[in-house]
Amino acid sequence: MERCLVPMNAESFFPNNIKAALQNDPPGEWIPSVPVNSIRLHSGYPAPQLVPSKELKEAVTQLLEEEKDLPLHYIGSPRIDTLKDWVRQRQDVRGMYAKNEELLITAGACQAIDLIARIFLDKDAVVVVESPTYMEALEIFQNYTDKILTIPIDKDGLQTEQLAELLAERKKKGLTMPTFLYTIPTFHNPTGTTMTEGRRKQVLELAEEYDFLVLEDDAYGELGFNNNPKTLKSMDSNERVLYVGSLSKVVAPGMRIGWVHATEKFIQALFWFKKDLEHPFAQATMATLLENTDFILRLRNLSETYQKKCQVMLAALEKHLPRNASWFVPEGGYFVWVNIPGVDTEKLLSKATEEGVSFLPGKYFFLNQTEGAEYLRLSFSYESEENIAKGIEKLGNVIVSKL
Amino acid sequence: MERCLVPMNAESFFPNNIKAALQNDPPGEWIPSVPVNSIRLHSGYPAPQLVPSKELKEAVTQLLEEEKDLPLHYIGSPRIDTLKDWVRQRQDVRGMYAKNEELLITAGACQAIDLIARIFLDKDAVVVVESPTYMEALEIFQNYTDKILTIPIDKDGLQTEQLAELLAERKKKGLTMPTFLYTIPTFHNPTGTTMTEGRRKQVLELAEEYDFLVLEDDAYGELGFNNNPKTLKSMDSNERVLYVGSLSKVVAPGMRIGWVHATEKFIQALFWFKKDLEHPFAQATMATLLENTDFILRLRNLSETYQKKCQVMLAALEKHLPRNASWFVPEGGYFVWVNIPGVDTEKLLSKATEEGVSFLPGKYFFLNQTEGAEYLRLSFSYESEENIAKGIEKLGNVIVSKL
Repeated sequence: MERCLVPMNAESFFPNNIKAALQNDPPGEWIPSVPVNSIRLHSGYPAPQLVPSKELKEAVTQLLEEEKDLPLHYIGSPRIDTLKDWVRQRQDVRGMYAKNEELLITAGACQAIDLIARIFLDKDAVVVVESPTYMEALEIFQNYTDKILTIPIDKDGLQTEQLAELLAERKKKGLTMPTFLYTIPTFHNPTGTTMTEGRRKQVLELAEEYDFLVLEDDAYGELGFNNNPKTLKSMDSNERVLYVGSLSKVVAPGMRIGWVHATEKFIQALFWFKKDLEHPFAQATMATLLENTDFILRLRNLSETYQKKCQVMLAALEKHLPRNASWFVPEGGYFVWVNIPGVDTEKLLSKATEEGVSFLPGKYFFLNQTEGAEYLRLSFSYESEENIAKGIEKLGNVIVSKL
Repeated sequence: MERCLVPMNAESFFPNNIKAALQNDPPGEWIPSVPVNSIRLHSGYPAPQLVPSKELKEAVTQLLEEEKDLPLHYIGSPRIDTLKDWVRQRQDVRGMYAKNEELLITAGACQAIDLIARIFLDKDAVVVVESPTYMEALEIFQNYTDKILTIPIDKDGLQTEQLAELLAERKKKGLTMPTFLYTIPTFHNPTGTTMTEGRRKQVLELAEEYDFLVLEDDAYGELGFNNNPKTLKSMDSNERVLYVGSLSKVVAPGMRIGWVHATEKFIQALFWFKKDLEHPFAQATMATLLENTDFILRLRNLSETYQKKCQVMLAALEKHLPRNASWFVPEGGYFVWVNIPGVDTEKLLSKATEEGVSFLPGKYFFLNQTEGAEYLRLSFSYESEENIAKGIEKLGNVIVSKL
């Protein structure tokens, strides 16, 4: 080994599909660098006072007193099954009847989406996404294929007529048909919109007609201010929907608990490729917490709190944003999507962070990042009502002084 | 939607590489079904009394009192960095100097191995593994390629001369050369053997000569009864080694904490494809636990306990197994690998579980499962000394009564 070494050529070891994926922007490019004490309107985090840290501490104490070392081994904690039972019952309550074999617990919705991409997508596969859409999902799909098609969103969610046209045209031209549509039909990230029931039906009809699957991301689906619309999965009579649920937005993202509900064959394949094994400590802790939680009451508290925060944000937007700015009024979830004609929101962000307020520029939610320049996403979930009002005032001042 | 539906054809949605992978045995086929109260000599679990459940309970209490909601969000807990620092310092102590950019925290060694497979393997890639080897790693590699080559193990670890021959022959014939060698050089799973220093040097020389990478799985590397051999990574002067470490065997597998130490380009790519995000609660809890742990003392306790258990097992094997049985004497780790000529260990297992003792049949550790029929893996890690002695006596009786 004392010969003169030729330095190893790291890149030469990557297969072509990996080399291609590495050409995209690196993961997390969208995360803004924000000074401490900034008002964080970019974070899709739950409100700190709604994160059950005291209850989690108690849950861990109870769990380890009752189960000793069991949840610290690979398998053995009975609460791994308890968590799955809880999820199954929660799906039932919402009209999505699942057998145990139709459920897979994952490390949050992101791992669920990645696993779904893993079993369905190769470089020739076609995927349809909403435009704009969740940037993490875009990052995931781009790791597998560059054949991503986009359909715009309006106030009623995905524009299904445009989807129908796209599908008809591809069929006519003999082009590869999509493997799946990725959608966040309820309290959409980033737009806050909700797909109407008519459009939901049309999505399922199109899935039948053109034989594709639907990946329904329902991370915000129980956070309606007044009611929660029926999920696509609950309307699906032919097992075409792969439903992704998550406790990140209703309990705590740091616990990394999500799930997939889909037909047994798909769940088997997802399990096959899920190679981080179970997360017994996290899953059993969550199961213990949920045993001790009145979940319906919890959801009610969340929705009341977030509705108030949203109202504060909307009022402040009315007051402080220029007349030509506009936004969708959300009926649940975490986000308000704002359009400010003539303003480049990426440039605006650097000014805004100097003034102590942050948001996410719209471009990160578009496959083609030349789009979305005049949009931004605001989160009302994390900051206090007071800070939301202050933050929007600051933002308004920055926009006005820039114009 | 009220038309007569054609049932969806689930399989039609899988790309060819996924269809091929799904032809293998399903994951976890090797996990035996064992009655309660059985003596579990199949489990590669740490000893229950060495799992720090009390300390973990205290760590969670301290963490959530000090950090409140921080470790329950996506990012924000300072202890995510603390954990990485701890790992970096641990690598340093062992002669593997890492920059932060050369480390990635993973959900255990399995996720690390899967991510490494993800960035390097496509269906045309060639991998070399030891025979026998860790069955989870075999499952992982088979999800990516069917071009897996095996090199046998003897008491001194991987037979590097055979590796040299294989490489020379493939080179001569113009065949695809391996992307990486997967090895567990220290206290090997399942054989308990340790690769000699001379062979370690030869592995690294061959990696230079034939331009391949080395995936070093060091899950047991600090569990030497007397000393811990130098890792391949510490001897690697050209960044060819991707080192995988884990806290599963030295703290608790249920926490799912492992890591990769490799050249920065590789770590960037691994991070790119790691889509379960961080696990802030698990990572910050582990960081808090380690802050309060004298790790050197902990390792000393582990190695003393496991050495005693191993001695009890070896003495019992001498006493109760037929004369023609043989095994490697381990110098650390969790396992004893036993050869019993003329005995089919898969058939033996069903008799043994009836008598209240379990082990893992050797076949599961071979790519070609027609091999290994006369071998079995025993774990001395989990059961008490008393149960180990009893379990081996039972096993001896079953073998004798079967012969």
